[in-house]
Amino acid sequence: MATIKDIANKLGISISTVSKGLNNANDISEGLRQTVLDTAVEMGYTTKKMRKEEHKKLCIFIENMNYESPNHFGYDIILGFKQAAYRDNWDVTLFPIDPDFQQQEKYDTYMLKNGYSGAFWVGFALQDAWMAQLDQTTIATALFDNYIEKNPNVAYIGADSFEGINAAIDHLVNLGHRKIAFLNGSLHSMITEHRQQAFYDSMHSHNLPIEACLVANDYYCSESAKHYVPAFLANGATAIVCGSDEIAYGVMAECHREGFRVPEDISVIGFDDLPQSGESTPALTTIRQERIELGKCGYAALNNLINHVSISKILLRPQFILRDSTSVKCPHAS
Amino acid sequence: MATIKDIANKLGISISTVSKGLNNANDISEGLRQTVLDTAVEMGYTTKKMRKEEHKKLCIFIENMNYESPNHFGYDIILGFKQAAYRDNWDVTLFPIDPDFQQQEKYDTYMLKNGYSGAFWVGFALQDAWMAQLDQTTIATALFDNYIEKNPNVAYIGADSFEGINAAIDHLVNLGHRKIAFLNGSLHSMITEHRQQAFYDSMHSHNLPIEACLVANDYYCSESAKHYVPAFLANGATAIVCGSDEIAYGVMAECHREGFRVPEDISVIGFDDLPQSGESTPALTTIRQERIELGKCGYAALNNLINHVSISKILLRPQFILRDSTSVKCPHAS
Repeated sequence: MATIKDIANKLGISISTVSKGLNNANDISEGLRQTVLDTAVEMGYTTKKMRKEEHKKLCIFIENMNYESPNHFGYDIILGFKQAAYRDNWDVTLFPIDPDFQQQEKYDTYMLKNGYSGAFWVGFALQDAWMAQLDQTTIATALFDNYIEKNPNVAYIGADSFEGINAAIDHLVNLGHRKIAFLNGSLHSMITEHRQQAFYDSMHSHNLPIEACLVANDYYCSESAKHYVPAFLANGATAIVCGSDEIAYGVMAECHREGFRVPEDISVIGFDDLPQSGESTPALTTIRQERIELGKCGYAALNNLINHVSISKILLRPQFILRDSTSVKCPHAS
Repeated sequence: MATIKDIANKLGISISTVSKGLNNANDISEGLRQTVLDTAVEMGYTTKKMRKEEHKKLCIFIENMNYESPNHFGYDIILGFKQAAYRDNWDVTLFPIDPDFQQQEKYDTYMLKNGYSGAFWVGFALQDAWMAQLDQTTIATALFDNYIEKNPNVAYIGADSFEGINAAIDHLVNLGHRKIAFLNGSLHSMITEHRQQAFYDSMHSHNLPIEACLVANDYYCSESAKHYVPAFLANGATAIVCGSDEIAYGVMAECHREGFRVPEDISVIGFDDLPQSGESTPALTTIRQERIELGKCGYAALNNLINHVSISKILLRPQFILRDSTSVKCPHAS
């Protein structure tokens, strides 16, 4: 576990200043105090005081998503949630779970038995057993990238898919592309469906035809690319928009294997902006989701639900990140 | 202006406790301190300390909406915004404006010249001069019931129209109604368009036909009713959903003039839940927007924008309020 000295070194401040921040002293600015607390949470340092009273407990359930290291998609979401929750003196427990876990006990029963005031769900699939229970739950529940109609105890937070995909299509159209392919994740998640619809809507609003042979769904991983990219290329695609950065890495590798240069022969755009996407070859043009902020919004939504303010949705605007994997349409392409 | 004694009387606590709350003393609970501050804001009491430094200034622009008294729609929205902003030490100025005011100076110029860090807009119409400038503004701007695509400096907050209208249609269908009319505000505002689309979508999802003779748009006021209600009744409507409570008051009066009893002969549903809607005859069944919370969400969105977190949307779930203006479809109706 990190020590006070580690925190002081990381921030370049004295141990006594860290101590003041952790102990809420008067002679330290509010901004610096929050930085110290955020860094303590980030480095896994908790004082007895920070561990809070037993009855202020929240939990995070995560599945279908990597989160263990800073270059994983889920890492910053969890970090942002914890940072915001600690400021309000909540204790937060993280539970990586799987579909079997959800069969063992009902969601509400689990939460009540274990004394949690609310939960943040990350990475759930539409067919999960607990998802079907959300229409009726009385537990304050904030969902990352899932939405439940009508129940005032459940909120949805995420990035606005249409704005993100539309920014990608806008960019490609401005570069002269018309035959734009889309390789997305599997359609068992709400957010994949949103991005798919966003692609259709954006192509439509740019007066571009949607060709069935240029749209495919598979898992959110780089291996998906080899099943679809050769056909995309054979069918004349000059650009490929991907449902995630992971997919885009595979797409760029597959284009290379097929003898196509990125971006000279084909443009590629990701979605997420993982930390390593600036380091790929070429550096990936992508749609950034601010994951720390998504985590903080998840907490804000949950805290409102606990206080009986029925947040339905909080959506962040994704940000278009221009790097090197896109360029003007190759003049030799059809 | 209210005195400390007025605040003490209203809350039923001592003057010294009020003073502690206003001066951030240590020996008062955080909850009570916030109640004291909220009440002070509500009663118009401000200490020198609460008036804040000159450079932390926000403003609210309001038009097309009454806000002066607690039974006006805008009153609680402004109150909620101010309560949340004062907690973070912002000074807030309210500007009731009109379209002419927007012609005199550009929005960004006005804001920069006067040293405001951001603004909350309430009641703007789509054709307002300043609305056209929002695509490009660099000023943090939170809009109540308006949405701007793409600009990361602008956020939209409001109640989810589809959930609200759908709850009303659900209720009426469960009571046996099929010929449901809709009297909405004028289509120069985004939110009116949303409610209109929500009506079409909800009727469609309930497998009910939309009859052109049962849908109309006019101003958000009770006088609108007399132009349309006689035709709705003549065309066999057994229920009328209204775009606002003000419209619903007029609809109930007009039904009465035409010799129809509410709810025995015709059901009426409002939207907003104004304070006086529980006191109408009959008491109005309506869709409640939590206006204090909408104001607080407006501040939360604006504060995020100022800190460069690009909130796109915060939507609250409206709440269905069942009172006495709806009942099972009259058996004599067609």
